[in-house]
Amino acid sequence: MSKVAIIGLGHVGSTTAYTLVSRDLVDELVLFDKHEKIVTAQYKDLKDGQVGLNSHVEIIRPDLSELKDTDIIIFSAGKIAVQQGSGNRFDELNYTKKVAEEWGPKIKESGFNGILINITNPCDVIARHLQELSGLPKNHVFGTGTSLDTARMKQAVSDKLGVHANSVHGYVFGEHGMTQFVPWTKVRIGNTLMSETLDQKEQDDLENQAKQNGVDIFFGKGFTCYGIANQAALIVQTVLSDSKKVMPVSCFNKKEGIYIGEPALIGADGVEDILPLDLTSHEQEKWDASVASIKEMYAAI
Amino acid sequence: MSKVAIIGLGHVGSTTAYTLVSRDLVDELVLFDKHEKIVTAQYKDLKDGQVGLNSHVEIIRPDLSELKDTDIIIFSAGKIAVQQGSGNRFDELNYTKKVAEEWGPKIKESGFNGILINITNPCDVIARHLQELSGLPKNHVFGTGTSLDTARMKQAVSDKLGVHANSVHGYVFGEHGMTQFVPWTKVRIGNTLMSETLDQKEQDDLENQAKQNGVDIFFGKGFTCYGIANQAALIVQTVLSDSKKVMPVSCFNKKEGIYIGEPALIGADGVEDILPLDLTSHEQEKWDASVASIKEMYAAI
Amino acid sequence: MSKVAIIGLGHVGSTTAYTLVSRDLVDELVLFDKHEKIVTAQYKDLKDGQVGLNSHVEIIRPDLSELKDTDIIIFSAGKIAVQQGSGNRFDELNYTKKVAEEWGPKIKESGFNGILINITNPCDVIARHLQELSGLPKNHVFGTGTSLDTARMKQAVSDKLGVHANSVHGYVFGEHGMTQFVPWTKVRIGNTLMSETLDQKEQDDLENQAKQNGVDIFFGKGFTCYGIANQAALIVQTVLSDSKKVMPVSCFNKKEGIYIGEPALIGADGVEDILPLDLTSHEQEKWDASVASIKEMYAAI
Amino acid sequence: MSKVAIIGLGHVGSTTAYTLVSRDLVDELVLFDKHEKIVTAQYKDLKDGQVGLNSHVEIIRPDLSELKDTDIIIFSAGKIAVQQGSGNRFDELNYTKKVAEEWGPKIKESGFNGILINITNPCDVIARHLQELSGLPKNHVFGTGTSLDTARMKQAVSDKLGVHANSVHGYVFGEHGMTQFVPWTKVRIGNTLMSETLDQKEQDDLENQAKQNGVDIFFGKGFTCYGIANQAALIVQTVLSDSKKVMPVSCFNKKEGIYIGEPALIGADGVEDILPLDLTSHEQEKWDASVASIKEMYAAI
Repeated sequence: MSKVAIIGLGHVGSTTAYTLVSRDLVDELVLFDKHEKIVTAQYKDLKDGQVGLNSHVEIIRPDLSELKDTDIIIFSAGKIAVQQGSGNRFDELNYTKKVAEEWGPKIKESGFNGILINITNPCDVIARHLQELSGLPKNHVFGTGTSLDTARMKQAVSDKLGVHANSVHGYVFGEHGMTQFVPWTKVRIGNTLMSETLDQKEQDDLENQAKQNGVDIFFGKGFTCYGIANQAALIVQTVLSDSKKVMPVSCFNKKEGIYIGEPALIGADGVEDILPLDLTSHEQEKWDASVASIKEMYAAI
Repeated sequence: MSKVAIIGLGHVGSTTAYTLVSRDLVDELVLFDKHEKIVTAQYKDLKDGQVGLNSHVEIIRPDLSELKDTDIIIFSAGKIAVQQGSGNRFDELNYTKKVAEEWGPKIKESGFNGILINITNPCDVIARHLQELSGLPKNHVFGTGTSLDTARMKQAVSDKLGVHANSVHGYVFGEHGMTQFVPWTKVRIGNTLMSETLDQKEQDDLENQAKQNGVDIFFGKGFTCYGIANQAALIVQTVLSDSKKVMPVSCFNKKEGIYIGEPALIGADGVEDILPLDLTSHEQEKWDASVASIKEMYAAI
Repeated sequence: MSKVAIIGLGHVGSTTAYTLVSRDLVDELVLFDKHEKIVTAQYKDLKDGQVGLNSHVEIIRPDLSELKDTDIIIFSAGKIAVQQGSGNRFDELNYTKKVAEEWGPKIKESGFNGILINITNPCDVIARHLQELSGLPKNHVFGTGTSLDTARMKQAVSDKLGVHANSVHGYVFGEHGMTQFVPWTKVRIGNTLMSETLDQKEQDDLENQAKQNGVDIFFGKGFTCYGIANQAALIVQTVLSDSKKVMPVSCFNKKEGIYIGEPALIGADGVEDILPLDLTSHEQEKWDASVASIKEMYAAI
Repeated sequence: MSKVAIIGLGHVGSTTAYTLVSRDLVDELVLFDKHEKIVTAQYKDLKDGQVGLNSHVEIIRPDLSELKDTDIIIFSAGKIAVQQGSGNRFDELNYTKKVAEEWGPKIKESGFNGILINITNPCDVIARHLQELSGLPKNHVFGTGTSLDTARMKQAVSDKLGVHANSVHGYVFGEHGMTQFVPWTKVRIGNTLMSETLDQKEQDDLENQAKQNGVDIFFGKGFTCYGIANQAALIVQTVLSDSKKVMPVSCFNKKEGIYIGEPALIGADGVEDILPLDLTSHEQEKWDASVASIKEMYAAI
């Protein structure tokens, strides 16, 4: 029996829950949210949401003792109102660090010893904070990081070149935030490098398009949910089945001493390996800027 | 290539869209909403939401000319604020009938000749209104009706008796609203009748529980989405693959001259047959009350 | 991590394995067969058979120590040549009882304490034999029994009446063999009884048709595989996710002291309950004949 | 409604049919085989094989008039006995070219104007023969070619390096036969080239292992089925949903004037584009040898 807990049942957490239920990716799903009414609503809607399917996912009400044998915790607690606010990027951190500080010790005390996947923003910083607060091994905690940004980059390339996103190979690196970047010298369709096929302007346009898509979704409907829920579900599937897929997630980078988005090998043991960065000097500069941004933010905790 | 259009991309419409994309149930999905920003947001989030999956659903921006070769229209336009309002059950109708009146003629002019599935509430009344406005054959227009209520009834029985909802056979009849009812003399697990296994109080409790679950979801998170999206997706799958499954939907009842929830045979030709009601006298009274309620509401259009 | 072992990799066992892999229903799959060459061939073909899918099923070579933490064993060892032989129904038993006698003690010694699902024919007799030989609790051992026969009956009704097989509710009872029977007074579409809709000749024709379909498949291609593999996969899914679905399987009938096909509640604990038979006197006669047939065969062990 | 026809219902054709049914990838499936008994057996077993699933695939008996509106024909006619025979690689061709010559004109006369996917060996030669005989546009006919060989190469790398096959990017080029080759300078995990990570011996070992796996399967069980059926199903899914994925298939190479395995862009219009080969001089030699081998075989027709 595979068991996943979701902490935070807003748009992101609940859509992730629905994706896991709808695609039959888990056996048991434990729901946590600070609002009892929300828990009850999502609990009941998720149960309704599987009637007629052949599968069965046991939906479980909040109970910390359930965490002891839980395989994966998805941390998606946050507050959309804070994000929609002043535009000061520390506002969100100031709110979510407190939520992490409330949950980290609870997770520790529960005896949980599975994999903790953080979605809450700022993703890289909160992932690190949660790792420290929970006392879990570094490879057992990681963030969804640039997995969604990578999806958006692939989709932007797909839209431009008329090739399925799965046939675009490459990753977005760095912060899940403004300093993220696409190392185009490592993005390929077949054996064709995008850094050779696309000129600088086209590369920049695509990179901006991918970021803009996220902005358009957020300001168009007030939140984003399907893209991130899909990535979270793919990561859950990878961990639960010990798939050992290469995925761009926010994991602990030993050299920098921070969590940051880079391609890693994901399996039942969490982040089982990190792939070589292999950056050009130009990319290295962008990487350094991204590292600096995450460090600055982490220092504010 | 199967092609589905969704009109109205609020919580219900967009969750239905995501369900179709996530489970790879359609080839093309056309999105319509009166808010351009919402269309753009859902368009982009739904594209993001399939990156990494093997499947491919072409998401298409609003264009009435796309309806000509569309197989199914899902009508899910509404306004949650109206529902959350005064509690006067005519408020919602007064709003949604106008939306139907705006879309009915557009659908007609588009040359659409597929199946129209209505979710917008009051479901039975709007289904009928849309059929008349669109000029489509009566069997090509139906509402999700009591499909969600049936799912909730099955789930309530499942919770009480510890049996998978798929092993509970039966349907909720009547209005997708307060006058709906469960004919317990037709609900079975294996060959065991629920009207014999459960006493009157238990039957009433379960029936109330099923209704209350809907209320708890609505007031807990401000809307319901997973249960209805799942039912809509199951109906879409049934029509597109010409499955000829028995499903409780809101279809045209010749005798009463209205749309009302009852078990029907669903296939590529829409409502291909309606099953015998076979009601006890007590159930007939409930049915009559439900018919009256729908007629009263329809008269208000 | 869910772990299933398949013992016997002929057409039935290997198609079941492929179904589990192809639909991503398990995490680990252990293969056993007496022919080393067959194991290697299926091991490699099953690995090839998932490349390109998002899922990951770990295929594991035969090793009895793997059974200790295996959740489900599927027993599908047999020899098609024996079945195609003399037509004497004891021939197959004489062969397969020896296979059971070889494997029963091995399973016992391995420390396996999961659910054992028998497919090997004569299914009811071998299920009982395996339960006794393995020392597993009676509810943890059952046979696929009349699940395939039920599927064929539903499909025959579906073909005749133009209704999806899932909307035909009912079960085939008794021996997975010639004495099986359809209690038509318990087969329904919606609330309509097949015993009232179909006349005696139509009932008999459908019952014969369902049996004849099995014969046509067997003699047409020398074996049957898809129907049984699909049922086995559905049962595995039900056990692994603790679904508590009602399924017609060959389970231990306390009153008769034998294994025989009847509707049972299937969950993580195997056969968790058996539904009331509720037979008419005419059906009771058929049941008794089926019981006698199984007993006679069991006596020959 | 998507409609696929399978010509030839041996192990490969029927397993492909089952995969399409089991994963609900088509709406209608037309079966053809020269043995009426086989058609009946597969028809009935495939119908049995979907009972209990929510999906519905209409299985259709052989009728050439069905091809007129069929989207895809899968050509899998062959004779396993011929393959198991003398080892002379022209034996198989001598048999299968006659089968192609029987079917090509029938397909032409039927008015079929969809996509024809050839599996029958020698795959590259028969694909070309079928294209010429059917009169279909060159981009509407292609063979599964090195798609299976690519899967085996990825799986061999996966086994050696402990990385999911989907995270191994690259393709096997050339003949679906002995002269096929892996251009290791184009095989990557993340940004790491296999030609740099693996030494020459390791590369050769993996390439041989991948080929040997096919041999082991064939001689272990007398045929191969899951690997090829899975690839065929993935290709069908790609064409039907117009996915525009890059897949290694046997397509018409203008320069060489033959069908040969190379990465191509697959969509609703068949082979919509061919990717640059981009070979090193060493790889070019292998390519030339593969071209020569296919030409020699084609000359024997």
